[in-house]
Amino acid sequence: MASTADSSVLPAPSTRPRVVVIGAGFGGLAAARALDDVPVEITVVDQRNHHTFQPLLYQVATAGLGVDDICYATRGIFQRQDNANAIQGRVTGIDFDRRVVATEEGLPLPYDHLILAIGAVTADFGVVGVAEHAFGLKSVAEAIEIRTHVLRRFEAADRLARNGDPDGVAAATTIVIVGGGPTGVEMAGGFAELIDGPLRKDFPDLDLDRARVVLVEAADRLLGTFAPRLGHHACSRLTARGVELRLSSTVERVEPHAVHFADGSSIAVDTVVWAAGIAANPLARELGLPTGRGGRVEVDEHLRLPDHPEVHVIGDLALPPAEAFDGPVPQVAAAAIQGGRHAAEVITAAVDARRNGAIAEPVGPFRYRDKGSMATIGRNAAVVELPRGPKITGFPGWVAWLALHLVMLIGFRNRANVLVNWAWNYLTYDRGSRLIIEPDEPEG
Amino acid sequence: MASTADSSVLPAPSTRPRVVVIGAGFGGLAAARALDDVPVEITVVDQRNHHTFQPLLYQVATAGLGVDDICYATRGIFQRQDNANAIQGRVTGIDFDRRVVATEEGLPLPYDHLILAIGAVTADFGVVGVAEHAFGLKSVAEAIEIRTHVLRRFEAADRLARNGDPDGVAAATTIVIVGGGPTGVEMAGGFAELIDGPLRKDFPDLDLDRARVVLVEAADRLLGTFAPRLGHHACSRLTARGVELRLSSTVERVEPHAVHFADGSSIAVDTVVWAAGIAANPLARELGLPTGRGGRVEVDEHLRLPDHPEVHVIGDLALPPAEAFDGPVPQVAAAAIQGGRHAAEVITAAVDARRNGAIAEPVGPFRYRDKGSMATIGRNAAVVELPRGPKITGFPGWVAWLALHLVMLIGFRNRANVLVNWAWNYLTYDRGSRLIIEPDEPEG
Repeated sequence: MASTADSSVLPAPSTRPRVVVIGAGFGGLAAARALDDVPVEITVVDQRNHHTFQPLLYQVATAGLGVDDICYATRGIFQRQDNANAIQGRVTGIDFDRRVVATEEGLPLPYDHLILAIGAVTADFGVVGVAEHAFGLKSVAEAIEIRTHVLRRFEAADRLARNGDPDGVAAATTIVIVGGGPTGVEMAGGFAELIDGPLRKDFPDLDLDRARVVLVEAADRLLGTFAPRLGHHACSRLTARGVELRLSSTVERVEPHAVHFADGSSIAVDTVVWAAGIAANPLARELGLPTGRGGRVEVDEHLRLPDHPEVHVIGDLALPPAEAFDGPVPQVAAAAIQGGRHAAEVITAAVDARRNGAIAEPVGPFRYRDKGSMATIGRNAAVVELPRGPKITGFPGWVAWLALHLVMLIGFRNRANVLVNWAWNYLTYDRGSRLIIEPDEPEG
Repeated sequence: MASTADSSVLPAPSTRPRVVVIGAGFGGLAAARALDDVPVEITVVDQRNHHTFQPLLYQVATAGLGVDDICYATRGIFQRQDNANAIQGRVTGIDFDRRVVATEEGLPLPYDHLILAIGAVTADFGVVGVAEHAFGLKSVAEAIEIRTHVLRRFEAADRLARNGDPDGVAAATTIVIVGGGPTGVEMAGGFAELIDGPLRKDFPDLDLDRARVVLVEAADRLLGTFAPRLGHHACSRLTARGVELRLSSTVERVEPHAVHFADGSSIAVDTVVWAAGIAANPLARELGLPTGRGGRVEVDEHLRLPDHPEVHVIGDLALPPAEAFDGPVPQVAAAAIQGGRHAAEVITAAVDARRNGAIAEPVGPFRYRDKGSMATIGRNAAVVELPRGPKITGFPGWVAWLALHLVMLIGFRNRANVLVNWAWNYLTYDRGSRLIIEPDEPEG
């Protein structure tokens, strides 16, 4: 009975516009949260049941953090948001005319507004052997794969050393990271610290002075999107930590136990991490969306599909018009968050207009505002670049990096756990997550 | 040059007796640590690269703790013990006459003293379908399997409810735990709290009043090894939390979506956890050891093989003579730790005697001393039984349980992380590790 009286004040749930958000990354979450007070019914669908804090994936790969520290159950994020629900599902198709998302699980998701936020994947740029023999770093599953593989190779090196196989030991204790952007720099610093600290103590019989961490970059400097001074700073700090830099160097192919360069040289190595670039999620093309540069979807000034203004494409997947930024909008978390908020703003205006029977309030076009960028090189060292502001390096930069990442993590529990682990790692030089977790072999 | 002078004081490493410890559980670790000051060369070999704190496995399965909280890299445990080294390896055979352990990895491990501490595995007692369709709980891999499966079934239930399939929902939101010992009681309490707290909020569209946690026990009471009063306490607390008890009930067979009982009744259920018993690791039989009751290896009063006094068998694997305890020695952590220390004592006496050219000091026979047992029923509730001492229940028992488990965990970092997570779980009723971590599907 109360519902009849209420319905005059508030539309019943079924009459509220349905917003479907595909992807629970930074962009999708920002969009759904920004619609908190809007009378819509939001469904966030992601192939995983959790949000992954991608900026710290490299710390999982280098045994500094556990999986549970950087993941957060998506349903949990929306427990207190009454107009939103999260489900795990793999999107297999979108009927843009009938406005229905199809999932592998057989659950159709009809929508009035759609936000596509499915991000990016590792791009191999056609280099032979990368897909088969190199590791990407876009999910916790991949981070755990890297960690497991490296720890297994060090166990193998220990045996190879006892059997008198120095070449085998060299390949097993070498890690080649391709790509000198923030991810590559952070991985190289993380592995240098893992090997020089805990693994050196774990493997007293191995001569880890001969272990190598090699960072390969096609350009003649690191951190190409940062100011040259910061790239040089990263070079000198990584070199001081024992990382070998191989600048102006192009990978020609990756084999199971070697990486070959365009200049004819090669390195015997069992572990190659590919951090040389990303491409928009290929699912976009499979869904029939017109894709442009880097597989990204060309959108209008409101990040909408030109033919379907009810479909917003945000984050790494979107290619906003040139006016949105001085140059192409970078594929970074801040752009995804800003894009998600912009999509929410446009949807809010449309919903308000429909309720009031008026024309939607005009919303200004999407503009990406650069909040700066940062990368850590490891212990006490990071580079921070603020737009038109100061460039910070060394310890102050590192503290700024730590603080920002702690704040950006979702949930008090994850923050507390990360803080405990960082304090532990810092004070003891240890990396507590040196675990090889494998499915049990069948018995008998 | 210095080594020549030194060798008169201390035998060179190669002349020190070699101790191989197979298994990095409670028993193996206790033995290796107790040999800290003894001039031997210890190698601890385990199929995993980490120690697993088995008493808290059920908390990983019920999403209260992460894997990294309860595992500790074995090499890290022995970083500061100069006479010990840890390796990951799968033992495939032992040549008891030539005194060499063979591993799958091809590394032979010669020994002068061997400590076999390979523990126990889940025993299905021949019940049809248990091996195929029920989950055991002896490793973190199994704990993660249970967690993943339950969370997936709740996601499925959410879809089945939308599709109007109440029977499917019922099976997907039912968990049957077989075995009313400490593990079964703790799992049942853990799942009741997981469902009643976070999952109820995660799945607002599901009617979780109809979700079931069923604890099955063949005897007419829970916690058969505890005093009857404590078993009754566990019954009433679990019932108050919504757990259905099915006492005096025998499982006849397990199917993918049902469990059938000897009395002809059955429950439609997608998740069956088998906590009804353990058997000694079948590897013992494969190694050619004579096994007795429960697959355990019969040993002498010093936990040695009668034919090979240089081989000690400890922990869940060993069946010490009747004199060692009032009844058979239970397969619990305390017995494994005491057995490990006893083996170390016998080896120390032998090493001392050899160095001094004397006959070994006589060591008293192994005696298991019961330190008591405890089980938690969940939030604010546990049962604690001290030998010839008081029986503690409720909040004081729970605090004692928490304190003991924190102290027994290895490493400050793990303790700090567990404390953070327990505080979080207690204050918020949340379970932060509700994560489905799956290998990435191949793209394209």
